[in-house]
Amino acid sequence: MEALIKEHQNRIVFALENIDGKKFKKDEWTRPNGGGGMSCVLQDGNVFEKAGVNISIVYGDLPRPAIEKMRADHKSFVDTDVEKLNFFAAGISLVLHPHNPMAPTVHMNFRYFETSDPRDPVNATGTAPQNWWFGGGTDLTPSYLFEDDAKHFHKTLKAACDKHDKEYYPKFKKWCDTYFRIPHRGESRGIGGIFFDDLDAASKPNSKKPQEELFQFVAGGLDSFLPSYIPIIKKRKDMSYLPEHKEWQQIRRGRYVEFNLVNDRGTSFGLRTPGARIESILMSLPLTARWEYMHPLCGTGVDVAYEEADSTKEKEKETMEVLRNPREWV
Amino acid sequence: MEALIKEHQNRIVFALENIDGKKFKKDEWTRPNGGGGMSCVLQDGNVFEKAGVNISIVYGDLPRPAIEKMRADHKSFVDTDVEKLNFFAAGISLVLHPHNPMAPTVHMNFRYFETSDPRDPVNATGTAPQNWWFGGGTDLTPSYLFEDDAKHFHKTLKAACDKHDKEYYPKFKKWCDTYFRIPHRGESRGIGGIFFDDLDAASKPNSKKPQEELFQFVAGGLDSFLPSYIPIIKKRKDMSYLPEHKEWQQIRRGRYVEFNLVNDRGTSFGLRTPGARIESILMSLPLTARWEYMHPLCGTGVDVAYEEADSTKEKEKETMEVLRNPREWV
Repeated sequence: MEALIKEHQNRIVFALENIDGKKFKKDEWTRPNGGGGMSCVLQDGNVFEKAGVNISIVYGDLPRPAIEKMRADHKSFVDTDVEKLNFFAAGISLVLHPHNPMAPTVHMNFRYFETSDPRDPVNATGTAPQNWWFGGGTDLTPSYLFEDDAKHFHKTLKAACDKHDKEYYPKFKKWCDTYFRIPHRGESRGIGGIFFDDLDAASKPNSKKPQEELFQFVAGGLDSFLPSYIPIIKKRKDMSYLPEHKEWQQIRRGRYVEFNLVNDRGTSFGLRTPGARIESILMSLPLTARWEYMHPLCGTGVDVAYEEADSTKEKEKETMEVLRNPREWV
Repeated sequence: MEALIKEHQNRIVFALENIDGKKFKKDEWTRPNGGGGMSCVLQDGNVFEKAGVNISIVYGDLPRPAIEKMRADHKSFVDTDVEKLNFFAAGISLVLHPHNPMAPTVHMNFRYFETSDPRDPVNATGTAPQNWWFGGGTDLTPSYLFEDDAKHFHKTLKAACDKHDKEYYPKFKKWCDTYFRIPHRGESRGIGGIFFDDLDAASKPNSKKPQEELFQFVAGGLDSFLPSYIPIIKKRKDMSYLPEHKEWQQIRRGRYVEFNLVNDRGTSFGLRTPGARIESILMSLPLTARWEYMHPLCGTGVDVAYEEADSTKEKEKETMEVLRNPREWV
């Protein structure tokens, strides 16, 4: 997993520098209690307002409160009453915010987690983790909907899923729509993609090597990232736009911030973890965002005259329609 | 309480329109399950980027999950095992974000809450609430610290507190520093003010009319708002500034968003309350904000070269110093 995410970080950074023309700033960091990571961030690029491609490989002790939190969130977690567990986690996390309001923001994340009981003589050798699972996904957030982009994105993800299990795409597409919902706004963060968590041996009951199989699925997901997004950014990055399009993008960026700070469990967990690298967690936020009171096209609540809003704003309304009522794209 | 907050909303809106030159937009709204409010918002004014002065008076049933949440947060809450309580809440809430980066953002809130058990024959007449308390406070968030402003602000609040109880200011100033802390950044939202909650009969053990006394304290706090802020905004609103000052303000606005969306219990509670008026809750967010990765002056974490940052940035460094280590101003 460590080798896989390192390879993909390099490959993705290389491809994005090729498109942007500017270089990423690379920061290697170490975690005081074990492990570390590498954050690659490109700010104020030619194509990207802000782009982050981070990896982290961390390990050490999992104290009791964290064990309890994990037990509540992961039904697969083996319920042993211990004071302390060893853990190992490796993940890659990417967020790209382009300048052009016609070009969508994209997010991708794949991660592996395992724990073992240090008192268990078998586990002490590190050969048999007690609990392990994979999680991840990727999703697209346009300010302006282009149906072709949504179809291409979902089709690419579906193909990557179908190679491993025909049930994955429909299940993970739905999971993504549920996860990236902003309940207080009654809308989704974007047009979705795939999201999954807790992929463990129980997900592959008939497999002799479930861990290896699921690792191959994650590798396939990572492989599909560039083909899913690069054609879209190439098509949209130089489109012409007006100041009002940029302003709409800024309003939508505000919703991105709301989701990430209010609703995203990963961000919330990260910000509350002592010793976490805050700058790497918050690289997901856009460079700039805007909040208007009762925006006529996407204000929230009964008083907002959505229906009566400027009839020339067809494109914005169409996007809002899809964010309020997620659609099937493949 | 209802009469008090209505009067102050009018008075404050009038005073702010006088300073800005533009008018507030006034929205009256009703809550489907009982009560309603009035939101007054001025956006893109001459002095204020965004200014909101809201009141709400709501009442009805408090379902069991809300009762349990309340019991956990308010130690004064009488612990009766009931399925349902009646509640009444009235509050005023204000946030002003000026354009000029030299002029500070200010926040003010005063609220009253009571519950009664509908099964109790005395309470059924509405004459004796089972639980009641006051909460509130006001605090200042400058992008650039002016010591005179901080001293004037705190001195005005201290005078309002001292009239009622000499112990209030030191206690509530400290409470404010604790409440408006952004733990993941290791800094405070601003230079503080006062904050209090759970002010009930137990806070006035020797008083025959504790509710009336505490109401008078809240009325005094509200009275002190305009004198605490108006002299400051008048002094700062027309100061000259450079684009780099505006950019620093935008970075600081990002921290304001972080606190409100991640740490503020009131916002968090509001966003999770079904039927809440989202636009009124989120009027507290600035019109625009900015997030830079590893900002040299206020990035968070070991890698950030705070000490080595541009030595001409004395004013920004001084502000950060005070945000990291809250000071006594009176």
